Amino acid sequence: MPYIKIEVTKEGVTREQKQQLIKGVTDVVTQVLNKDPHLTHVVIQEIELDNWGYAGEQTSVLREKGITAERK
Amino acid sequence: MPYIKIEVTKEGVTREQKQQLIKGVTDVVTQVLNKDPHLTHVVIQEIELDNWGYAGEQTSVLREKGITAERK
Amino acid sequence: MPYIKIEVTKEGVTREQKQQLIKGVTDVVTQVLNKDPHLTHVVIQEIELDNWGYAGEQTSVLREKGITAERK
Amino acid sequence: MPYIKIEVTKEGVTREQKQQLIKGVTDVVTQVLNKDPHLTHVVIQEIELDNWGYAGEQTSVLREKGITAERK
Amino acid sequence: MPYIKIEVTKEGVTREQKQQLIKGVTDVVTQVLNKDPHLTHVVIQEIELDNWGYAGEQTSVLREKGITAERK
Amino acid sequence: MPYIKIEVTKEGVTREQKQQLIKGVTDVVTQVLNKDPHLTHVVIQEIELDNWGYAGEQTSVLREKGITAERK
Repeated sequence: MPYIKIEVTKEGVTREQKQQLIKGVTDVVTQVLNKDPHLTHVVIQEIELDNWGYAGEQTSVLREKGITAERK
Repeated sequence: MPYIKIEVTKEGVTREQKQQLIKGVTDVVTQVLNKDPHLTHVVIQEIELDNWGYAGEQTSVLREKGITAERK
Repeated sequence: MPYIKIEVTKEGVTREQKQQLIKGVTDVVTQVLNKDPHLTHVVIQEIELDNWGYAGEQTSVLREKGITAERK
Repeated sequence: MPYIKIEVTKEGVTREQKQQLIKGVTDVVTQVLNKDPHLTHVVIQEIELDNWGYAGEQTSVLREKGITAERK
Repeated sequence: MPYIKIEVTKEGVTREQKQQLIKGVTDVVTQVLNKDPHLTHVVIQEIELDNWGYAGEQTSVLREKGITAERK
Repeated sequence: MPYIKIEVTKEGVTREQKQQLIKGVTDVVTQVLNKDPHLTHVVIQEIELDNWGYAGEQTSVLREKGITAERK
């Protein structure tokens, strides 16, 4: 009965990316734990940049400074 | 001090239904546990259909296929 | 696809009370929203008294002062 | 690696207040636990008044009755 | 800045499975969203069988009846 | 009606530190938002090191390698 919550900043995540997240995470969890996918729910929660803080700063402020969360 | 979070897909839940959820769940929890309702909070979180995955599929896709979550 | 999380202080909640919570909350949510119970999950999370704060005080301290969360 | 979620009713919380919440909570948690702020995330979640229940009532109804959550 | 919470029933999940969950889910999320893994946290929460309800029944009761969550 | 959840790794957080977290976070949130502390709940959740992943690694493995989350 896994339940998975994914919280990400709201920065243009597309419908296709959401489907990839849901499919990919469901695959990992059901395969590692040998669980029935029909008992597996994934919820994606997008958080406004003003509402996510990192190291004491709003992400919206970090983005204005040119600091991203991108993989290098 | 119970706190209850209810996550549901965002599919036209009315104000009246929300009130019924809040009242009903508060009654169950405070009666079973003999808790003061003034210490009991209920939060309803509605999730976009693109953001809720079931069995590896977006709920929005399931709905397009005619698959609902309705009680039979 | 409702998912419900119930957080309560860890104060001797019995197996029977947990079953009543699960049954009662599932009934309320599936009836109000007309949802299939087979898509409905309820998770109870018991929190140690030292770990739940109310009005800036640990619940364990409140209990030592004789302050309970019981319904009057 | 602390992660902190702050849930509040959606009642005109300003960008400045959000920054104060993020800064203040990050300071408390990293100082008390001696944690690296770069491992500390804070997420603020604003909840519609219809979706937050207190003592079995919707907060929107409480507000209509003139009952606020303000500090006295 | 993704944060992912995985909730599963407490049924003998090994340290190796937890590592596979953490690695697998981090890979999916950072690749799909092109995010820095150093900003990505995964939390696994194991829930006692008495505390997880499915279709109005405690999972512990379902297990006693021989009903598992295993993939078929 | 704020509700705050603090998730930290389970690494010897003392009762005093928990009280400081509860007091400090309640003060910040009630002062910034002008909220009644009697409507403010704080829940601390301690997560086993095997269950918290950072950058795709279990925190328990990171600790074995001498990597801590301490403020420098």
